Amino acid sequence: MSGLSHIDEKGRAVMVDVSGKEETVREARARGEIRMSREAVSALLKGNVPKGDVLSAARIAGIMAVKRTPDLIPLCHTLPIGQVQIDLKPSMEEGSITAFCGVKLTGRTGAEMEALTGVSVALLTIYDMCKAIDKAMEITGICLLEKTGGKSGHYVRREYEDKDTM
Amino acid sequence: MSGLSHIDEKGRAVMVDVSGKEETVREARARGEIRMSREAVSALLKGNVPKGDVLSAARIAGIMAVKRTPDLIPLCHTLPIGQVQIDLKPSMEEGSITAFCGVKLTGRTGAEMEALTGVSVALLTIYDMCKAIDKAMEITGICLLEKTGGKSGHYVRREYEDKDTM
Amino acid sequence: MSGLSHIDEKGRAVMVDVSGKEETVREARARGEIRMSREAVSALLKGNVPKGDVLSAARIAGIMAVKRTPDLIPLCHTLPIGQVQIDLKPSMEEGSITAFCGVKLTGRTGAEMEALTGVSVALLTIYDMCKAIDKAMEITGICLLEKTGGKSGHYVRREYEDKDTM
Amino acid sequence: MSGLSHIDEKGRAVMVDVSGKEETVREARARGEIRMSREAVSALLKGNVPKGDVLSAARIAGIMAVKRTPDLIPLCHTLPIGQVQIDLKPSMEEGSITAFCGVKLTGRTGAEMEALTGVSVALLTIYDMCKAIDKAMEITGICLLEKTGGKSGHYVRREYEDKDTM
Amino acid sequence: MSGLSHIDEKGRAVMVDVSGKEETVREARARGEIRMSREAVSALLKGNVPKGDVLSAARIAGIMAVKRTPDLIPLCHTLPIGQVQIDLKPSMEEGSITAFCGVKLTGRTGAEMEALTGVSVALLTIYDMCKAIDKAMEITGICLLEKTGGKSGHYVRREYEDKDTM
Amino acid sequence: MSGLSHIDEKGRAVMVDVSGKEETVREARARGEIRMSREAVSALLKGNVPKGDVLSAARIAGIMAVKRTPDLIPLCHTLPIGQVQIDLKPSMEEGSITAFCGVKLTGRTGAEMEALTGVSVALLTIYDMCKAIDKAMEITGICLLEKTGGKSGHYVRREYEDKDTM
Repeated sequence: MSGLSHIDEKGRAVMVDVSGKEETVREARARGEIRMSREAVSALLKGNVPKGDVLSAARIAGIMAVKRTPDLIPLCHTLPIGQVQIDLKPSMEEGSITAFCGVKLTGRTGAEMEALTGVSVALLTIYDMCKAIDKAMEITGICLLEKTGGKSGHYVRREYEDKDTM
Repeated sequence: MSGLSHIDEKGRAVMVDVSGKEETVREARARGEIRMSREAVSALLKGNVPKGDVLSAARIAGIMAVKRTPDLIPLCHTLPIGQVQIDLKPSMEEGSITAFCGVKLTGRTGAEMEALTGVSVALLTIYDMCKAIDKAMEITGICLLEKTGGKSGHYVRREYEDKDTM
Repeated sequence: MSGLSHIDEKGRAVMVDVSGKEETVREARARGEIRMSREAVSALLKGNVPKGDVLSAARIAGIMAVKRTPDLIPLCHTLPIGQVQIDLKPSMEEGSITAFCGVKLTGRTGAEMEALTGVSVALLTIYDMCKAIDKAMEITGICLLEKTGGKSGHYVRREYEDKDTM
Repeated sequence: MSGLSHIDEKGRAVMVDVSGKEETVREARARGEIRMSREAVSALLKGNVPKGDVLSAARIAGIMAVKRTPDLIPLCHTLPIGQVQIDLKPSMEEGSITAFCGVKLTGRTGAEMEALTGVSVALLTIYDMCKAIDKAMEITGICLLEKTGGKSGHYVRREYEDKDTM
Repeated sequence: MSGLSHIDEKGRAVMVDVSGKEETVREARARGEIRMSREAVSALLKGNVPKGDVLSAARIAGIMAVKRTPDLIPLCHTLPIGQVQIDLKPSMEEGSITAFCGVKLTGRTGAEMEALTGVSVALLTIYDMCKAIDKAMEITGICLLEKTGGKSGHYVRREYEDKDTM
Repeated sequence: MSGLSHIDEKGRAVMVDVSGKEETVREARARGEIRMSREAVSALLKGNVPKGDVLSAARIAGIMAVKRTPDLIPLCHTLPIGQVQIDLKPSMEEGSITAFCGVKLTGRTGAEMEALTGVSVALLTIYDMCKAIDKAMEITGICLLEKTGGKSGHYVRREYEDKDTM
């Protein structure tokens, strides 16, 4: 046994059987950040003043990506997403934007990959809008913060607890 | 002027005009990594032995994501992708898999976002396949390594030069 | 409170939580029309005679669009569509084609946006096929005719009741 | 001959041959509006104040829909979109939001359907966000304002000229 | 009555109503094969030795296509796919690769089209990778092997029973 | 060297470089058939009489699938499709529908996979609409008939020459 749920006994990728699992409420929360020059954060915040399109675009892109997770990640199940929330926190001091994505659903498997995909695409969207100013940006620290529901129980990541709140 | 190319003078998101630009050969190379327990790297490599489906699935997912970049990133142009290469380097010592994505095309705008999207989705696919073993994985260090073609000229990132080669 | 269900207390777009809602049968019916020259209606009906591809193409495009609603409308939930019916009524006298779309599903939220999207894409498809003849066409009068199921109860639009029946 | 460019001599739908056409710069501009109660316009504008997510979401959805036009409209060609701009004008007096979409590209066929699709999806997105307040909204007056490039020459619609400017 | 479930009494395509059906576990298994020169099978198997990307790519493409069936087949319902398994059996003697696809789900309608679509796209992917060697390949014998669940009961195809096992 | 163009020297799948190739006019024509009971062909043709939705739906689905080929086949390039034509020939005597798909484009690589994908999805769509009548249908004989343009020159398949004409 490989321990990898998506690999069968012959080493082949499979989409694992969830058809017999019960539908329960499941939630996942992920985070990640993009590091950029203060000049870029400042341009983004100034561009943001009148209409907010920069952060709005990233939020919308993240929400839409959550729904398209099974189109992107080969072995992810199509899930009836119940709620998506994306939060973006710019920090001038640290030269970064932190993205949070919370996903909630009633289904047969978890919302973990959906939350991580939402964070990734929101950050890529910010990258796209700031790349004319700063080519050295870095997307980093993408991880699961919390997960509830399902047989694997409640998971909470300690590392970011004090620093990040959504 | 905000300095952000995708925001017009009123702060609204726009897809910028590239219709007058010349078609030239453009290349971009990006990298990123996923950190996981050695137990997870080991399971992934063992699962890999007979058929290689774990890393293959991530490579295929990354290549397909490159082509879908304009569907994910709201203001990205649809580009005639000419070549995509995804390379994945597992390291037992560091407890990580590093992903590289190289994209080449003849078009009116660059391949930067495509290479970054390919890296992100390849890493998310590895996450998905290893998450039953390790919930504390982190996707990190996603950045542009090199970019050629277009009016902004040749960009090379110094930071990863010694460490990473595709 | 803004009264807008998709905007949270900070003015941010969110996909609202439906995970706790009960699954019930929900139906929605929408309509819309495209106004064109009689010459264009006539060409469309003549083109229609042998194989019916003009109106068939619009019907198929509308049905497929219903299923892709959550890919198009950022905050729409992915719903398990149970039934879709598209009806197209050409009128030589009025110089118009009226489109109706009925959607039925068992789910946690309504079918309203799906029916409106089906109507819109069916009409855009007719526009596409007739645009060589008439550039002054107008798509107009897209609205909800009826909606049942869900906590907001039964809605019927009075305005088109005598004129339109699907 | 049916006069319909997408229907062949046997009445079958075909995607017409543009492979021999020259690549030229083409532009199209379309408009449309959504009529709603003043209460709904007011809620939308208030919701808009802090972050602008309502109109931003509609703009982003419209831009993304422009790129997906060939996925929605069966006989549309996949075009290398060069520029997209969506403009939304709320009017408290008239109880409406007017949407404009301008598309520019260098390609073998026009940008007309792309601009109309961008308008339609931007308006549907506004509908979705306001439907909790007003179920009697109507999407109306979707039409082409102007089109340049291609063998059919320059088209300008007279009707909306005084009223609408993008 | 036409006997065709997707055609209404007026000959129009409809997506049939499944909203009142009960959710039950449903399974389908399909097969198909691609015939090619032994030279091509041999190249594919040699290419396969180090990393297995040829057959892995086909497996991943087939699994992803299963999830996208309702995007491709106009009147197919969107189903909550529970499990997908793709098996590929190369035969040097017969000069062929046989593909099997098994799909399992808990839903209101069957998994038949999903399994057939998975087989078709897996075989097209193999075709794509071998077409530089052999242009005379043929994809053939795509059919349903078995189907359970739903009111139409248990179906087993006799023809391939001895020859094929997944 | 494996001889497989999509596999690099390490056995990894890559999307091959076409960015340096010249844009030329390329055409491909593919065919395939679905075998069914005469009862099913008859129902399909009767259902076809008033509005033609059965064969129209298959034609539209095939045309749309041609445009989505790079979304389905992992290593296919996104091509600017110039023309698509789908032809469907029912035969009561043989109990079959034969599908032809012709694709023409000006691009850097061929239209072969697009034509084969169009045939496959058109046939799957017919299967879907007839499956209530006949569960023993078989999709078979999918192959390339002709290919022009590109460095590999003109390919014509002899086998079906007398039998099939589009």
